[in-house]
Amino acid sequence: MQANWIDGQWRPAAEVRGDWQAVDPRSGEHFGEHFPICGWADVDAALGAAAAACAGLADAESGQVAHFLDDYATRIEGHLPQLAVIAERETGLPQTPRLLSVEGPRTVHQLRLAAAAAREDSWRDVVVDRANGIARCRQPLGKAVWCIGPNNFPLAFNGISGSDFASAIVARNPVIAKAHPGHPNTTLMLAQLAAAALQASGLPPATVQLIHHLQPEDGLRMAADTRLGAIGFTGSQRSGLALKAAADRGGALSYLELGSVNPVFVLPGAANHDGDSFSEAFLAGATLGGGQFCTNPGLLVLPQSARAQLLVQQLAERYRALPPAQLLGEAVAQGLHHAVARLCAAGAELCAGSADPFGPGFRFPWTLLSVAAERYLQQAEVLQQEAFGPLTLVVHSATADQRKAIVHGLEGQLTGTLWLASDGSDDPEAATLGQRLRPKVGRLLENKLPPGVAVSPAMHHGGPFPSSVHPGFTAVGMPAAILRFTQLACYDNVARARLPAVIAERWDHAEA
Amino acid sequence: MQANWIDGQWRPAAEVRGDWQAVDPRSGEHFGEHFPICGWADVDAALGAAAAACAGLADAESGQVAHFLDDYATRIEGHLPQLAVIAERETGLPQTPRLLSVEGPRTVHQLRLAAAAAREDSWRDVVVDRANGIARCRQPLGKAVWCIGPNNFPLAFNGISGSDFASAIVARNPVIAKAHPGHPNTTLMLAQLAAAALQASGLPPATVQLIHHLQPEDGLRMAADTRLGAIGFTGSQRSGLALKAAADRGGALSYLELGSVNPVFVLPGAANHDGDSFSEAFLAGATLGGGQFCTNPGLLVLPQSARAQLLVQQLAERYRALPPAQLLGEAVAQGLHHAVARLCAAGAELCAGSADPFGPGFRFPWTLLSVAAERYLQQAEVLQQEAFGPLTLVVHSATADQRKAIVHGLEGQLTGTLWLASDGSDDPEAATLGQRLRPKVGRLLENKLPPGVAVSPAMHHGGPFPSSVHPGFTAVGMPAAILRFTQLACYDNVARARLPAVIAERWDHAEA
Repeated sequence: MQANWIDGQWRPAAEVRGDWQAVDPRSGEHFGEHFPICGWADVDAALGAAAAACAGLADAESGQVAHFLDDYATRIEGHLPQLAVIAERETGLPQTPRLLSVEGPRTVHQLRLAAAAAREDSWRDVVVDRANGIARCRQPLGKAVWCIGPNNFPLAFNGISGSDFASAIVARNPVIAKAHPGHPNTTLMLAQLAAAALQASGLPPATVQLIHHLQPEDGLRMAADTRLGAIGFTGSQRSGLALKAAADRGGALSYLELGSVNPVFVLPGAANHDGDSFSEAFLAGATLGGGQFCTNPGLLVLPQSARAQLLVQQLAERYRALPPAQLLGEAVAQGLHHAVARLCAAGAELCAGSADPFGPGFRFPWTLLSVAAERYLQQAEVLQQEAFGPLTLVVHSATADQRKAIVHGLEGQLTGTLWLASDGSDDPEAATLGQRLRPKVGRLLENKLPPGVAVSPAMHHGGPFPSSVHPGFTAVGMPAAILRFTQLACYDNVARARLPAVIAERWDHAEA
Repeated sequence: MQANWIDGQWRPAAEVRGDWQAVDPRSGEHFGEHFPICGWADVDAALGAAAAACAGLADAESGQVAHFLDDYATRIEGHLPQLAVIAERETGLPQTPRLLSVEGPRTVHQLRLAAAAAREDSWRDVVVDRANGIARCRQPLGKAVWCIGPNNFPLAFNGISGSDFASAIVARNPVIAKAHPGHPNTTLMLAQLAAAALQASGLPPATVQLIHHLQPEDGLRMAADTRLGAIGFTGSQRSGLALKAAADRGGALSYLELGSVNPVFVLPGAANHDGDSFSEAFLAGATLGGGQFCTNPGLLVLPQSARAQLLVQQLAERYRALPPAQLLGEAVAQGLHHAVARLCAAGAELCAGSADPFGPGFRFPWTLLSVAAERYLQQAEVLQQEAFGPLTLVVHSATADQRKAIVHGLEGQLTGTLWLASDGSDDPEAATLGQRLRPKVGRLLENKLPPGVAVSPAMHHGGPFPSSVHPGFTAVGMPAAILRFTQLACYDNVARARLPAVIAERWDHAEA
């Protein structure tokens, strides 16, 4: 049975509540090491060690934190071939191009950007008011951050190597990582690399810890523990909101990235004139990663016209021609099965695909459903629920007013897309529809399909509730993502010798 | 019965669930107009009108928003004598200096700073990444903000004129205001001034609305309504956290300022050598506003020495010599009565004052209690609960380790203070104690006593849970306070003509 990594040591779980193995979703076969479902004693040990590490981590040199992140990035880069082999086996995501050329380099790049932010203290947000004798900056939460990764990015959003992890470390908070149980061997290898880099850095040993898995009740108890400062979570709405409710009791912050259907509105001019280019772009966006990104477009609103009907027929043909999507695991297959049933019960019609998973392993046909806007508007709450995976719902809207009504009834979304004709004929509707769509989405795209979550300081990967729980914070993009795990800290009449260095430097140059 | 101000009209409450009058806390007498406790129909009307106003407000010129805030500030300034008369009668706070020379000008100044932030768009936080074709800025939540004011600042923290109000308006969110029922006539006069300024501004009529009061169940229903974007609240922990739990269900953000005991640690050298200057500063900070500020120091940790004993005796004498504090209302008196009983039951001893309110009206003797550190540490959870009003608890700590333990057991605080000897003899302990205290407090003071919440961009009026519910945001200080009521908004491949002006300007100058 694999050990947890607690306070710098590989410790067998103190309490084993169960165990599990990874499953190859291509075959459905279990393989490899057994991992423990741990008990409260393990959580308690990790929280205790993290609490003891806070002060040392807060006072570490910026360069030391940066060095750890850079070193860890380099170790991941060096082990990418091995990581890709195991991650492919655990998730079904292909080594090439996905793991080796896209997600692996993204992970390394993100850790290096975090290292730069740590070195430059770009997240400190210093404001000096020397005339009033006060100054403030951002500081660590002074408590542990629990980073809980999703199933769909074993490297770039892993609880021990993703953006939440990197952001929390830059902000000098000890991280307790919990990866998705779908890829425990990948996570273990990452943890070993992190452990080596951490040991070399001289940072407190409990700066990074790993607890493989917990039963739900221990997870909620951990979320509610007053030693926890924040949770960074990417995953399902149900699990995320349950954790948040628990966290609120103890006062920990919750940053949850919960996914959305990412609506795409094709306006009449575009449907008539630019259907082919749209079609190609949509297929690329919808099918990326087997539709298993948080930002794949899942709701396609088309105008009602002969050309739009043809477009749906063409999409349906393309979907039927695709091999079934390789899913990340059994839960995705079950979710899709229920989603198709739910959508059909609410009035959608199946145009391609089915409600039934395929074998071997966990696969699902590319599935396209459609519904008229009138019906959609009656059942918007059900029909806009995310169906994670290879599934698209088309809504046929006869009028601009229907499109307005669809936007009006939208829940908060990570992204929203407008597709306009190049001849300017859609511009008037784009202006009014865009004004209404804007506050409902984190990222507004135009004539471009998501995902495309660029690792950029201008990115916003987040959105209004329920796509996330705070639309003012992004999960991707430095230094903004770091701010989630900081608190404001004001110094009032504090002697210069006891001001933190980032403030003292500015103080000397500020106007009195 | 007074009308609410809904969608630009003074409308009698559609449902009246009860009514109340203001009480003069100096005499206990009811006086003036009757105000309605409204029902759901009134809330529904206000939420509907606010939703309809969002787009117009979001698209208003920056200058128009700034003009409204400036004009409102000038109207308040012009009516300050009348406002001070009525606010004094409702709260017992003196016209001079408090209302006319301190709180009134602060309110006006704050609105003018907000106007400047609106004019300069300093809260927009624009980041352009032209190479990737993306940019982001901050935008309105696109939903109403409910501003709920406290009892202790009828002007500067009023739901219709305080920092929450001004911040939400700058961020272009319609505000539904609800002031504390302790000062409804002051609030009504403010609303009339706001209404006049709003009409002159040409902003949507539902940009500012006022609902006088609600029953608790309608308040929770309003908090949970999906048309609500955020709550700005200053008040009691119990009410605030109940509202937050409801708001979480509908997805509204909560910014709660819940008060704290604001511990003060006097180190041994200071107690022995600088006792007199400390004593004067402490009295000034503790007694300001009758001890009815969120940041009055309420927990005083002294070393155990003959000089410190003398200091407590002197403080007790001074407290006994003060006339009873004029309270804001009956609830404060009741809270104090229960607090003294609770503190004594937990082992504190009464040094001055009593558990009993005085008349006429609502007054309370200046009350000083003390407890040994050993006992405090056994009952820290009870003994660190805020007793809002003229009450101080002294803890006698024999050792530096006890002071460390007291800090270790502290809940999150708005402020924390270290008082050190001028000869440097306390510096070593200040370094270690300060390191531990820092993450527990929003503002760290040194040889200076709170309140002193300067209206400055460097201020942080907030703190870790449970003093607030997000330590990354301040309730005072522009432009940071504005950010609470914004969301990040990313534009991906959006044509320049459809970018917001704040981004388009930067776009042209950004590197491609």
